[in-house]
Amino acid sequence: MATEHVPLSRATELFGQRVQARRNELGLSQEALGHLVGSHWTFVGQVERGRRNLSLHNILKLADGLGTDASELVKDLPAPLAK
Amino acid sequence: MATEHVPLSRATELFGQRVQARRNELGLSQEALGHLVGSHWTFVGQVERGRRNLSLHNILKLADGLGTDASELVKDLPAPLAK
Repeated sequence: MATEHVPLSRATELFGQRVQARRNELGLSQEALGHLVGSHWTFVGQVERGRRNLSLHNILKLADGLGTDASELVKDLPAPLAK
Repeated sequence: MATEHVPLSRATELFGQRVQARRNELGLSQEALGHLVGSHWTFVGQVERGRRNLSLHNILKLADGLGTDASELVKDLPAPLAK
């Protein structure tokens, strides 16, 4: 798999899958979600591919745009190994 | 209040208060928690003062170090206004 498609971690991979699933449930395009959270659609695509170790603020904005709570998006995600 | 003590947002402020409360419950020092998550104790202090818009990985490491789930630390936090 080309490196730009390899998730940063299991946590970002799972987080991205949850964002994508919820976005599809709502019938939103990546562009529409990006607009809702004040980000470019490519950011949404990267999050969904697990390629973003995104910030607390962006997690909260995405959850808000998806009409869910951030706790639903981070629940039971594995902590990456402390470096 | 000196700017370096002003929280970045209501969300980072509340997140920091939750980290501090949980750390105190466990009787951990900032240094001990910093060690558990592979960060300097000053990072923990900044998080607790709401001065860090920390990453998903750091949220997960802190939750792990605090023996809780990240969902407990982010539950019902207000999304910052989309810029």
